[in-house]
Amino acid sequence: MPARRSTGRDPLRSARPAADPRATTVGVDLGGTKIAYAVVAADGRVIATHRHPTRAERGADAIVADLTRCLRECLGPRGRSAGAIGVGIAGQIDARGVVVSSPNLGWRAVPLEFLLAASAGLPVTVTNDLRAITYGEWKLGAGRGARDLVCVFVGTGVGGGIVADGRLRYGATNTAGEIGHTTLIAGGRRCHCPNRGCLEAYVGGWAIAERAREAVAADPARGRRLVRLAGRAEAISARTVARASAGGDPLARELVRTTGDYLAAGLVSVANAFDPARIVLGGGVLDGLPSLLPYVARRVRGAALGVVARRLRILPAALGGRAGVLGSAAMARLRLPGGI
Amino acid sequence: MPARRSTGRDPLRSARPAADPRATTVGVDLGGTKIAYAVVAADGRVIATHRHPTRAERGADAIVADLTRCLRECLGPRGRSAGAIGVGIAGQIDARGVVVSSPNLGWRAVPLEFLLAASAGLPVTVTNDLRAITYGEWKLGAGRGARDLVCVFVGTGVGGGIVADGRLRYGATNTAGEIGHTTLIAGGRRCHCPNRGCLEAYVGGWAIAERAREAVAADPARGRRLVRLAGRAEAISARTVARASAGGDPLARELVRTTGDYLAAGLVSVANAFDPARIVLGGGVLDGLPSLLPYVARRVRGAALGVVARRLRILPAALGGRAGVLGSAAMARLRLPGGI
Repeated sequence: MPARRSTGRDPLRSARPAADPRATTVGVDLGGTKIAYAVVAADGRVIATHRHPTRAERGADAIVADLTRCLRECLGPRGRSAGAIGVGIAGQIDARGVVVSSPNLGWRAVPLEFLLAASAGLPVTVTNDLRAITYGEWKLGAGRGARDLVCVFVGTGVGGGIVADGRLRYGATNTAGEIGHTTLIAGGRRCHCPNRGCLEAYVGGWAIAERAREAVAADPARGRRLVRLAGRAEAISARTVARASAGGDPLARELVRTTGDYLAAGLVSVANAFDPARIVLGGGVLDGLPSLLPYVARRVRGAALGVVARRLRILPAALGGRAGVLGSAAMARLRLPGGI
Repeated sequence: MPARRSTGRDPLRSARPAADPRATTVGVDLGGTKIAYAVVAADGRVIATHRHPTRAERGADAIVADLTRCLRECLGPRGRSAGAIGVGIAGQIDARGVVVSSPNLGWRAVPLEFLLAASAGLPVTVTNDLRAITYGEWKLGAGRGARDLVCVFVGTGVGGGIVADGRLRYGATNTAGEIGHTTLIAGGRRCHCPNRGCLEAYVGGWAIAERAREAVAADPARGRRLVRLAGRAEAISARTVARASAGGDPLARELVRTTGDYLAAGLVSVANAFDPARIVLGGGVLDGLPSLLPYVARRVRGAALGVVARRLRILPAALGGRAGVLGSAAMARLRLPGGI
């Protein structure tokens, strides 16, 4: 297995068992390009990590075999140090941990929770990745201590997770928190979902790229810098816009500002519908555009209902690149005996 | 007190005590024009009702005195038949039952829960009226048995209430459920709140009237029937639009159809963000436009995320004009010892 390891030995294998083996859990961030593992203590301390490429083109069976092998190594006689396993995965997961669909992996109807629980002999929880990250931010990150919290992640797509009155929310079909597919402009831009005018269709990375290409086509002279940075107009991405904006390009700056206006208008919906004490924002688009968060926070505070706005804090996600494994490991704790 | 009574005697006074006096509660629907009371059994059976005009212009003190007197009569030695009191009121209510603001009544910072509890000697819960109605629909009406439910009421304004994973949601400032102030068109029509382009600013009764008047101004020939029905263009209301639409007027029908499109786009946000098993729709606009609900339900099912849409049922509210008192009485049960 072409593993990239953070230490010379397999760190999962060499993980020193905690006093109570149930005190640790394994978090798995199962992405389209890489799979990351971490053995995590109850307080969020990372005891060991491991990662390897996904190579999704090999199909679900091969990937499940990789997962099984890596988890077995981690949980073998010498290293039995975890009480449960949590897996976060981008896609639609049902309440029994079946991956109904995961476009990144090309999976449909893979009963991952069942397969891993059988092979690992431990409780497993398989969750939408952004819900796992939300749970991690709530327990260990920027949401710590809040009873009402919505996390919104703006990357290529836009997703989120909800904590309401001190509980993670699942919804009737385990889909609660699809903030990216709330309507931002009725009848507006096409989305990848059946709706039109979704928040994601304006502020997701793919949508920023589309909007930028359209702006360049409409005014090629103004778009010259974006085209030069990307090589050609068709290659303009959200990253191109971020770079050009940082360099002071007027069109890119305008695109960033309108992205902020759109995101703020979407978050006003979140604020007024959910009445959270905190909105935690993360994801690649926000990481790439650090000016966006304070701008958006100011706009939301000015446009949400007064009583909601006065209480609301809008914060950046705190767990960074480890959010996936930390969140999944934290969710696995729910499957421990007496899990919290 | 100029009371309008549903029987010859004061029915609250003559209410036959139930076997366990705690088995009944009093629900109060405190509106801008009338105050309605009902003594309600645990199963939702109405034992007695009472109502009188609000006459809000007399100020909060006079109205609190009316409430106190009517409740005392209901709870006096001969009629002591209730274990708790619930009051539903349109406006912003804080978690301690202080009416922070109620535009219908012209109230600001009235500690209603405290005042009534002191005078009645019973537990009192004061709630936003639409949250009380949501609770009533959940316990006794169209939401019965659902664990995930959003109620949306489209009257002059638009509001709602949320049940998630089997619990009524309050939010961080007791404001959760302000579905009317979610963004429908970013940067769109002015709302009465600080946001622009709110759902309410398109489908609330006041907004339908505004949109109709604008359409008439833009094309007076097409608007002739609406003007004739209303007497003059400035008097066109949502009710005028409903009447003209029922009569086949093309402009009115177009206004109704776009209202349906807007409402559907707003409810797609509700469906995808909350993932409810049911959306319950009520309020004067929907009552006045019976064709709207099936049209909206079809549109939402076509535009929400597939997995959500397949599970989702969109139903009309079932409690009708009694929803306010029934919902408030049901919420009062939460204040009973061991309240459910």
